[in-house]
Amino acid sequence: MPVICSKCRSANAEVQIPYARMNLCPNCFIDFYRAKVRKTVEEFKMFREDDTVGVAVSGGKDSAALLHVLREAFPRLRLKALHINLGIPEYSTHCQEKVERLASLLDVELHVFSFPEELGIGIGDFKKTPFKKRLCSACGTIKRRIFEELAVKTKVRVLATGHNLEDVAGVMFNNFLYGRWEQFVRLKPVLPPLAEGMASKVKPLIKCPENENLLYCLYGEIPFREIDCPFATGTGVRKRAKILELLSRDNPYFRHQLLNRFLEIIPLVENVAEKPVLGKCKVCGFPSSCEVCAFCKRLSMVKEAISKA
Amino acid sequence: MPVICSKCRSANAEVQIPYARMNLCPNCFIDFYRAKVRKTVEEFKMFREDDTVGVAVSGGKDSAALLHVLREAFPRLRLKALHINLGIPEYSTHCQEKVERLASLLDVELHVFSFPEELGIGIGDFKKTPFKKRLCSACGTIKRRIFEELAVKTKVRVLATGHNLEDVAGVMFNNFLYGRWEQFVRLKPVLPPLAEGMASKVKPLIKCPENENLLYCLYGEIPFREIDCPFATGTGVRKRAKILELLSRDNPYFRHQLLNRFLEIIPLVENVAEKPVLGKCKVCGFPSSCEVCAFCKRLSMVKEAISKA
Repeated sequence: MPVICSKCRSANAEVQIPYARMNLCPNCFIDFYRAKVRKTVEEFKMFREDDTVGVAVSGGKDSAALLHVLREAFPRLRLKALHINLGIPEYSTHCQEKVERLASLLDVELHVFSFPEELGIGIGDFKKTPFKKRLCSACGTIKRRIFEELAVKTKVRVLATGHNLEDVAGVMFNNFLYGRWEQFVRLKPVLPPLAEGMASKVKPLIKCPENENLLYCLYGEIPFREIDCPFATGTGVRKRAKILELLSRDNPYFRHQLLNRFLEIIPLVENVAEKPVLGKCKVCGFPSSCEVCAFCKRLSMVKEAISKA
Repeated sequence: MPVICSKCRSANAEVQIPYARMNLCPNCFIDFYRAKVRKTVEEFKMFREDDTVGVAVSGGKDSAALLHVLREAFPRLRLKALHINLGIPEYSTHCQEKVERLASLLDVELHVFSFPEELGIGIGDFKKTPFKKRLCSACGTIKRRIFEELAVKTKVRVLATGHNLEDVAGVMFNNFLYGRWEQFVRLKPVLPPLAEGMASKVKPLIKCPENENLLYCLYGEIPFREIDCPFATGTGVRKRAKILELLSRDNPYFRHQLLNRFLEIIPLVENVAEKPVLGKCKVCGFPSSCEVCAFCKRLSMVKEAISKA
C-alpha cells in the first residue's frame, strides 16, 4: 500500500526524511527543502533578501541545487553564477555546458574563469608535480582562491558554496578528531571577508544531506553533471561518508547532531584558538599567513614542471 | 614466524598495541600498562604517592586491574578496596568472593557495603518499580552514592573508579552528541569533592582500552568475576562499544583522539555551562541539586513497591 505524504495528506509519498519522521510527495519535498534553505540563510544571517550573491557552481548536484533553490527562495536576490573551467579534457567541457544550461534556465548571469585560457594550465598538470597523489587537495586550494577573486571581480558581497551536511559534518569531525582547531573553525556557516573589498563566504546547504540535494535536482529537472572527475579518488571523502552513513543508520539525527554540537563549540574554540596573522603574499598581494600564498606556490610548481617537460 | 617484542627484543610478542605501533611480550606489556597508569595519575594530579585512596571494586576486570596496578605502581599508597554487594542471588556472592580473594592477595583492607544487610533490599527489587526497564541506570545512581558514603566512612581522600577508555570516550561521545554538557563535563578524569569532608573522584584507567585491562588481569593472574550480571542488558553500552570499535578499525587512534579532544574542550564548555546549585537532600542531607536526592527517590520507590507486594 502506498504511503501518503505527511504534509499534503493527498499525494503518494516518495521521499523519506527519517530525521524529521516525515514521508513526502515530490511537491511537498521541494517546499520542505526550499523552506529549510531559507531558514538556514535567516538563522545564520547569511545575506539580505536583496543582496548581491555569487554562487560557486561546479556543475555538480549540490551547487546546481544551491543556485536553483536560492533563485526560488529569494526572488529579489541579485544572483551571479561563478564557474571555474579546470581544463580537464571532456569533463570540464561537460560541466561547463551543464552550468551554462542551468544559468540560462534561471536567467542568471554567468562568469567563467578558464584555467587553460587565463593561466595556461589545466588541473591535470599537477600530475607532473609533487601534488600528483594529492591532486584534489591542490585543486581545492586553487579553486577556493579563484572563487575569491571571481567574487571581487563580479562585485558580489557574498560568495555562496554548495557544501552539504555530510561535507561539513564529516570534515569538521575529522578536524575535530585531529585537534586541527584552526581548520575546524573555518567550516562555520558564515566566514567574514578576508580583507576589505572581498566577499563573505556562506554555506546555505549546511543542513541539507546530499541525497536531498540530489532529489531536489531530479524533481526540479535541474541540469547537473553526469560524469565523474577522472582525477577524483575521493578516498578520504568516501571513508568519511561511509562512517557518517554507518552512524546515521542507528541514529538518523546523527549528522545533524554532530553539526549542531560543532556549531555550539565553535565560538568556544574560537575564543582560545590562535588566529592566523594575515599579511600579503609577496607575489600576488592576496591576503595570506605565509610569505608566498598557497596558490602562488602551487602555480609556480606547475609552471616549473611544465617548463621542464 | 613469531613476532619479537618491540621493547625487550628477546621474548615473543603476544600483545599488539596498534595505536602505539608496538608488539609486546607479556612482561613488557605489564610494564607498559603500569607505566601508562602511573603517567595518567601524574598527568592529571589524581593523588600523591602516599595518599589514601579507596578503589571501587565490583569484581569485574577493570576495577580488579585498577586495584592491582595501583598497588604495584604506587607502593606507598594507602589503599582500601571498597565493594558493594548488590544482593543479586549467586552473582553478588561470586563477585564478593573474587574481591575478597583479590584484596587478601594484595593485602589491601576491604570494606563491603551489603545491600540486603544494610538496606534490606536487593538491586533486583527495582524490577518491581518503574525502573524495571532501566535497572542498570538505577543501579548506577545507587552505587555512585554508596561509594561516596563508603569513601567518607573509610576516610579516604580520593575515590578511584575503573572507568576504561571505551567507557569514558563512548559516554562522552553520547553526551556530546546530545549536547548534555553538564553530564559531559562530569566525565573528566578528576572531580573535586562534592562537599567538605568528601572524597575527590579519579579515573586512573581513562587511557586504558578494556582489552588491556583484561590482558593485565589474565597475565597477572588477578581474580575477577567470570559470570555476567543477570540483569545486565547493556544495549546502550554495547551499541556505543560497537560504534567505537567500528571507527577504531580504520583508525587505531580513534578512541584516544576522541578522549583527548573531549579533554581539551571540557574546560571551554565548563566556562559557559550552567553549574548545578547543590543544596542538601531533605531526607538524607547528602549534597543534591533536588529537594530529594536521586538516591532517596529510588530507595523509597523500591520500599514502597516491596510494601505493596
